[in-house]
Parts: sequence; C-alpha cells; structure tokens
Amino acid sequence: MDYISQLKEWLGHERVTTNPTVLEHHSHDESYHAPHLPDVVVFPQTAQEVSRIMKLANEQRIPVTPFGLGSSLEGHAIPYSGGISLDFSLMNQVLEVRPQDFLVRVQPGVTRTQLNKELKKHGLFFSVDPGADATVGGMAATNASGTTSVRYGVMRDQVRDLEVVLADGRIIRTGSMTAKSSSGYHLTGLFVGSEGTLGAFTELTLRVYGIPEATVAARACFPTVQEAVDTVVDILAAGVPVARIELIDERSIRQVNLYKETSYPEQPTLFIEFHGSEQSLSHDVEFAQSIAGEHGCSEFLFETDSKARAQLWDVRHNMAYAFIHKSPGKKMMVTDVCVPFSELAGAVVDARQAIDRSGLDGAILGHVGDGNYHVILMIDLSDPAEVKRAEVLNAHLVEYALSRGGTCTGEHGVGVGKAKYQRIEHGEALDVMHSLKRVLDPNGILNPGKIFGA
Amino acid sequence: MDYISQLKEWLGHERVTTNPTVLEHHSHDESYHAPHLPDVVVFPQTAQEVSRIMKLANEQRIPVTPFGLGSSLEGHAIPYSGGISLDFSLMNQVLEVRPQDFLVRVQPGVTRTQLNKELKKHGLFFSVDPGADATVGGMAATNASGTTSVRYGVMRDQVRDLEVVLADGRIIRTGSMTAKSSSGYHLTGLFVGSEGTLGAFTELTLRVYGIPEATVAARACFPTVQEAVDTVVDILAAGVPVARIELIDERSIRQVNLYKETSYPEQPTLFIEFHGSEQSLSHDVEFAQSIAGEHGCSEFLFETDSKARAQLWDVRHNMAYAFIHKSPGKKMMVTDVCVPFSELAGAVVDARQAIDRSGLDGAILGHVGDGNYHVILMIDLSDPAEVKRAEVLNAHLVEYALSRGGTCTGEHGVGVGKAKYQRIEHGEALDVMHSLKRVLDPNGILNPGKIFGA
Repeated sequence: MDYISQLKEWLGHERVTTNPTVLEHHSHDESYHAPHLPDVVVFPQTAQEVSRIMKLANEQRIPVTPFGLGSSLEGHAIPYSGGISLDFSLMNQVLEVRPQDFLVRVQPGVTRTQLNKELKKHGLFFSVDPGADATVGGMAATNASGTTSVRYGVMRDQVRDLEVVLADGRIIRTGSMTAKSSSGYHLTGLFVGSEGTLGAFTELTLRVYGIPEATVAARACFPTVQEAVDTVVDILAAGVPVARIELIDERSIRQVNLYKETSYPEQPTLFIEFHGSEQSLSHDVEFAQSIAGEHGCSEFLFETDSKARAQLWDVRHNMAYAFIHKSPGKKMMVTDVCVPFSELAGAVVDARQAIDRSGLDGAILGHVGDGNYHVILMIDLSDPAEVKRAEVLNAHLVEYALSRGGTCTGEHGVGVGKAKYQRIEHGEALDVMHSLKRVLDPNGILNPGKIFGA
Repeated sequence: MDYISQLKEWLGHERVTTNPTVLEHHSHDESYHAPHLPDVVVFPQTAQEVSRIMKLANEQRIPVTPFGLGSSLEGHAIPYSGGISLDFSLMNQVLEVRPQDFLVRVQPGVTRTQLNKELKKHGLFFSVDPGADATVGGMAATNASGTTSVRYGVMRDQVRDLEVVLADGRIIRTGSMTAKSSSGYHLTGLFVGSEGTLGAFTELTLRVYGIPEATVAARACFPTVQEAVDTVVDILAAGVPVARIELIDERSIRQVNLYKETSYPEQPTLFIEFHGSEQSLSHDVEFAQSIAGEHGCSEFLFETDSKARAQLWDVRHNMAYAFIHKSPGKKMMVTDVCVPFSELAGAVVDARQAIDRSGLDGAILGHVGDGNYHVILMIDLSDPAEVKRAEVLNAHLVEYALSRGGTCTGEHGVGVGKAKYQRIEHGEALDVMHSLKRVLDPNGILNPGKIFGA
C-alpha cells in the first residue's frame, strides 16, 4: 500500500487529502517565493497521530513540511520537495490558562488573536505581535517577533516548554513550567526558530503578561533618522519601559499622505507605546518627550484613550496599505535585516539611497528598539528585470548588515530566501547546525531545503 | 613526548603546571562535592591556544575541564576524570564596551564586579548577580542568574554571541551583535548552560543596561508565606517593573536576629528593589505597598539613599553568614529547585517542614519572582549520617518540584549533583541531549561526568 493510502486508512479520507484546491492552498505562503504543490495534505488531531505520520514518512523517506496558516515570508511552509504538508489547523485548542503562573498551554494551530481573546478573560495578554494573525506554532518555528519585542522579547523568550515530535516519531518535551532552569541543554531554544527542520511542535507552553493598567501611544517627528534613533538609544539607556518603538521614514509618510489624503509631517517619525501604571506612565511620557526635545523633535503628540491611540498610530497602520494600494497586481517583498543600534541610523539612510538607486519604490519601517528594519517593496513577479532589481537590493541590505555585525533576518526566518546567506553569516557554525540537523533528522525528511538550501 | 611535555613546549612551563598547590586549587569548587585533582593546569591566553590544546586533547583522549574561579555549586569545575584543568584567569580582558549598542565584548575570565567597574564609566551595568563574584565564562556555562532575573532575565538572555572552541579545535561564533535574529539554529542558547560539555568559551558578547536614574529598596513583612507570594503575583501581574524580589522565611529572620542581635519582625519577609526614573518609582513603590497591604502586610519600609537601602536589606545580606557563623567547621549545601509561581508558597511551606523533619537546620531564601528558592544547609562532611540526611532532604525537594512542573535546578546547573535527576526531569529529551553531546564531542573529552553522569 502506498503511504497516502496508509494515511487514509489511519486518519480517514477527510483528514488526508489530495484535493487540488487544498493542495494549491498549501503550495505557497504570503511571500514572493515560487509555489510548489505537496503530494498530500494531512490534518492530524493529536501528537500520537503526528508521531505515527512521522514514523511512516521517515521509513519511506517522504518529506514532511509543517503548515500553520501559511503567513510565513520566506517560503517556510512551501513543500519544495513535495510529500506531506502537515496542517495543524485541527490542533487549535487553548488547553489551559494558568493565570497565577503567567502561563498558557496551547496547541500549535492556535492563532495570536484567538489566544489573546481567551487570555483577556483572565486580564492577561500574549505579547508577540508580528502583524499577521499567525499560528503560535508557526511563530515559534520562525522565532517571530514584531513591534513589542523591545519590551517583552521575541518568541523564543516566551516559549517555556514544547512538545516536539521528532523525525523518528519520538515525542519529547523540551522544557518545564518554570520561569528559569539550568537543567540540561536548552532544547527549547534550539527548536524555536528551527523552521520545521528538526521536529514538529504539537504543544507549546507560553509565557503571558498581565494587561497593563494603562497604555499611552505617542508620535514624534524628527529632522533626521539619526536624531530619531539617538532618541531611542537615550530612552532605552534611561530604562524607560517602552512597549513598542517604531520608526517610519519620510518617504513612507509621504506615501500615506498621498493614499489617505492626510497631512502628516513628512519627517522621520517615531511611534512609541508605553505600558504601565497610570501615574508612572505620565512621568515616562514626559521624560521621553524631554529626551526627544533634546534631539530636535518638532512634534510630540500622545494619547491615552484607545480610539485616540489608534488614530495617532494611523500612519503606521496604513503604511503597508499605502504602498499596496498604489501597486495593483504586484507582490510584496519584505526585507528583514537587523543591525546593532549604533549602525541603525546609517543603515536606514543607506537603505533609502539603495531603494532610490534601484528604481523601485518602497517603504522603510523599523522596529527600532531592536535594530530591525524592513524595506517593503511592491514587485511585479512577471517582470524578471524588476524581480532582479528587488533581489539585488535585498542582497545589498543583507551584505550591509552582515558587514556591520548584523544578521540577515531579524524576525522572518531563513526559509529558502535567506539560505544563501547562512554560510557568510555563520561561517563554520553552519557546519555545527548541519551536524545537529543530521543527528535529529538523518533521512532529511523534515522541511527539506529550508535553512540549509537545496 | 607525553601531552604535558608537549603543552609545556608550546606554552612554556609557567602556563602548564603540575605544581601540587595549583592542582589542589583546581580540584574543588565551593560546594560540598568531593574534590578530585587534575593531572595538569593549563592557562591559555588566546582562542588559538585553546584550539591547539583541544586538538591535542581530542587526539589523545585527554579530559578537559574548563575552570573560571571555582565558584560553582554542583561540582562543575571538578575534574573527576583527571586530565587538563583549563584555567581562564589569564583571559580576563574587557575587550570592547559599545555603549550605543548596550553591548560589551569580554574574555571568559572577566569577573562580574570587574565588568561592572568598567561599565560604570559608561553609565552602564551588567545585570546578572548570582552573589559570588564569578567569571562571566562560568556564569554562561551554568546559565547563572540570581536576584535580578525577574526584571532583566538570566545569563542566557544576556549572551548575544559566543566564541566557542569545539572538542576538535574548531573555533566558531554562535550569534551576532543584534538584539534579535531568526537566522539559523540558536547555538548561543545551546552552548549557554552546557557546562563545558560541548565546548569552551573564549569570548562573550553580553547585553548590558543603562544604570537606572533611581533605585528604591523595600522590605515588607507578611503573616504567611502564601500572602507574601500572592503579593508578588499581584505586583508582577500589574506590570510593576521590580528589579529584585526576594523572600526569606521567618526561621531565617530569627537566625539573623540571634546572630546580629537585631529585632527584625520574625515573619516571612519580602525584599524588593525598584529601578526606574525618580518620579515613576515613587508611584511604583506606592502601588506595591497598597498591594502588600491587601495581603496583610504589617510593615512596609522603603529607602532611596544607597546606604539606607543597604541597611534595609541587611537581613537578606546577613542570612547566609548567620547560618555559617553558628556552624563552624561545616560545609554549605545549597538546594536550587524552581517551581511554577502557583506552587511556590506550598513548596516553601513544604521545604520548611522537610527541614524540620530532617533534624537539620537551614535557611530558606527565594528568588520569588522566578519561583526559584534555596535551602541553605550547614553540614558536617565528616558525619556520614548528617550528609545522608542532607541528601535525602535535597532529593525530597527535587522530587516535590519535579512532580509540580518544576525543575531540579533553577540557576546552579546540573554538574554532578543533579545528574541523577536528568532522566526523571527530561525523559526521552535526555537522549536528544546525549546525541547532541556525542556529535559535538565524539571522544567524550569535554568535562566528562557532568550533566549526563558517570
């Protein structure tokens, strides 16, 4: 019996499908990377089922590519070698909220907004916000982060324990429910960010936080990117507990003004969010404002009320749309380098010049508290010259970052898009990674082609 | 030529020694674990030297045990299989402070106080404070933490990049200078806490923080341990950015009163430290005080001035001494379990009962924001019955923690003392750890006997 028939016998026809529409849905993610069909899509419901599927795949050398919601940006979920697309959408239960422990135990198919809806009942929230309503399994697989990591950390900082099904079907737990541990090797940290190449996650224990008593949003405009970044460094040095701190460059503000017919000052702009107690916050905001003033800030606005906050951050939220809107039929390519703080202002200025040189149009958006910034490019995939220009620009940004102590991906992961930079970034450490991969997946069935390339 | 002669030829007689006094100094750590002499102590000065030593040791199957200052508490630095004690005291330079990046690049032999002295010139500090003036290499090897991890995280959270010499002499770098990265496997996290069993660190890039504008210390007494712990949960839930939050039980306060002839209230007591801006802090302290009041706090004192703060925390600082003082000739055994918050109060109450049952005398001290607590026992190593009672007590505490989602070691590491609990705690994941060990150290020369046992 072939493996697909075997899987159907075990799980039933509804959860093992070769339906062309379903295959197509599992052939791409949200990126510009070329699609590729899996041979079959399987919907497990338990870790034991995942284990059984994995054992069979391992024996028969069938590739297995985990699939959350397909919101990855570097082709992680695309099954370039065919085989099984392992879809976790039926494993989407919030299993246990432990308010006293600031922990939640979830299945990998739970989405970020689904989780936060459940946590809100307990006065808690999950901090990682990558923008997309991704699954927590996918977010752990790519070590996602986003706007809040300056305060709360990245996905790896939130994962306390993973249940992982290994390539040979073994089911292990990598951590515990404690805030810290020095017991054994840090397998949790190794599996987070492994992009489905070392195992498939079937349960996650995540750290959550109390919803802050008060939130203040602020928007501050600066004469130059350098002065905006210097403000961020001074705010962080003073230990002001900012929860988000985002930079958008003047060209991007101009595009929002065009798109929304608004008149925001076309200057490098910081969007800051403060979390804390009501009274502490008023001092934090005042302090941040005085720092911004020292760096030539011409306009510093802040709002406490939830609607007014949303209005204040309107430019930030509309930026991607502003570029998408003017580029019908094009696909989005988002770059993702991260540099040390001291290199950030120079890197953003260089990125703007590189965009202009490329003849492409793009926004620059920075999670500036982390030194991570994105260039959002709209490209016509049917125009090979335009695709080439975008790839050259992306390569330039990566090389710039790597030459200054940076990384080729701050939060999107390697997938296929950044595989070619792994040797330059990691040197001989890449061989160590490869040897870990081989020992845990000797037959190479787990998400082949990702991280290490074809 | 034997390997010691070879090493002497390479490094000179002064840096390769079999002097009995030096061997003895490298035969023990600060714990109660039995000493064992190395065959030779080697003092490298560069990564290249470490690489050359390692290659030779690997070829000739000579055990290599890295040595910082010998302040470990579970026998990590004791060379139970003899061979080379690799002493990093000559690699003790602060190589580069990067204030704008909140980073410092150091050699592994740099100590915590040495580092903070250097950082202070730049208005910065290194956050991890395990009590002992350990080396940063040793702290990274055990994933040390201490009083400040509730705010700033543990050692693993501070290490951005490691230069590691592998068993075969390869020199790799595991990370970058960026605040975050999703590029490749998280080798930094894997090597931190690996206790010298996967490689030797020759350089570390560490995250540092701006010295807060203001610091407030507080001391709060409660009727019960449960009410003290509930206060901590509420303070953390409200997002009050406390920097330290320590619990000492009433028996321990009594011992300090006896030792120091003081009259501190003999009640479960929280010691809290707040870091922030002056004005935010006054609100944070007020808020914490009102939470404590809701949980029956009978006395809440706080101080801002540095001397007055030290005075307020006097009990905390004197606790270990109070027990050491009354136990001349005895050695200290410190337990180190960590449990989920919701289990902490019960665990501390159970620990006190278990101490009383054991007929031993001991202090309980908790890094209560992390769920990590220590029982400090003074034991007479020449009395096998007393040693046995201490071991039974330690085993009870570990089993209690493991049965409630905890870990056998919150911050001291496995060494030899916790090796026997690794299978219970990690299950099949221990086999995965072992397979990583074998692939990186196939000849088993790196700190043999540690983590995995003999």
